[in-house]
Amino acid sequence: MDKRLSQIVDFCRLIDKEKFIQRRTYLTDGNRLENDAEHAWHMAVMVLLLKEYANEKIDTLKVISILLIHDLVEIYAGDTFAYDEAGKQSQRERELAAADKLFSQLPEDLCNYMRSLWDEFEAWETPESKFAHSLDNFQPTMLQNASNNRSWRECNRKLSEVLRRNEKTALGSQPLWDFMKEVFIANGLESGALSKDV
Amino acid sequence: MDKRLSQIVDFCRLIDKEKFIQRRTYLTDGNRLENDAEHAWHMAVMVLLLKEYANEKIDTLKVISILLIHDLVEIYAGDTFAYDEAGKQSQRERELAAADKLFSQLPEDLCNYMRSLWDEFEAWETPESKFAHSLDNFQPTMLQNASNNRSWRECNRKLSEVLRRNEKTALGSQPLWDFMKEVFIANGLESGALSKDV
Repeated sequence: MDKRLSQIVDFCRLIDKEKFIQRRTYLTDGNRLENDAEHAWHMAVMVLLLKEYANEKIDTLKVISILLIHDLVEIYAGDTFAYDEAGKQSQRERELAAADKLFSQLPEDLCNYMRSLWDEFEAWETPESKFAHSLDNFQPTMLQNASNNRSWRECNRKLSEVLRRNEKTALGSQPLWDFMKEVFIANGLESGALSKDV
Repeated sequence: MDKRLSQIVDFCRLIDKEKFIQRRTYLTDGNRLENDAEHAWHMAVMVLLLKEYANEKIDTLKVISILLIHDLVEIYAGDTFAYDEAGKQSQRERELAAADKLFSQLPEDLCNYMRSLWDEFEAWETPESKFAHSLDNFQPTMLQNASNNRSWRECNRKLSEVLRRNEKTALGSQPLWDFMKEVFIANGLESGALSKDV
């Protein structure tokens, strides 16, 4: 038996756990919450459809790869809600430890490859990372809108919080940020789901 | 408002429905069935980790793109169980009609692009299509094994049926097919989940 292949397959089986990590976004039916695997799939397809709206020229395969694996560390670190300020304090430390534990289960070359993709996403510096982050904010806001802003209503979300969360969304795609403001956020305000505090 | 962008975003919202299409594969917890979006995500990550095992040189981005979108037609055509012989009779016709209806909702260039990816998968001719099909058979069998072969037990699955379903799995990857036989199928037989009729 090929030991390397067996080790990789063990890892492939392990990451099935990503399907059990629940996010705070309702799907378009407005009833069920999305999980990390569904979120990653949705954004990866969206790269194929929306890549022309990136601010800079991007390597499509790299953006997709980054998005496919960017939440894997949550298998050990758990999901940190984008509006959980206390959780975000410890997030970086928890996720670094999780990345060490997770990726080291792969053969060394694949460990380094996965880690480099995750580090690139986290650093928010390359065109690919910036565009990935734009989609990471755009996709849940699109679902927010499609589910009649249920999550915003439940949390009494304020406009200022949404704007703070999206401070860097335009860095990867100005058109997607404009769309978010003009369609999704505008609808949140008009429908009363989002309170206009700024 | 950018009409093209708006049209693409409508499509991105529509494909959220893929998360509601249930497959017959149990996840590794042995309790919940997998959905199409989770299945596609899992295989796309597996391309990143297993591409070296393809029989022929493959374009990684193309294989991933094919796998990400290959089940989208089920939004209109529904999932056809791999062992449902009656359903498989009408599958091609239903899926062709679904592809026409689905992809035509995109701007023409993206419609043609998505359609070409799906047609390539269906034709089972290119190295990328063959490897995508290998993973489309390998991934659920890996989950079958991880969930103690629950689905095989429930269906009284026979070895001959599994072999028939996998007639072409080795075309994309001989090592993955060997692994399936030597590990997953062997375990199914040993554990009594799979009956040895050949």
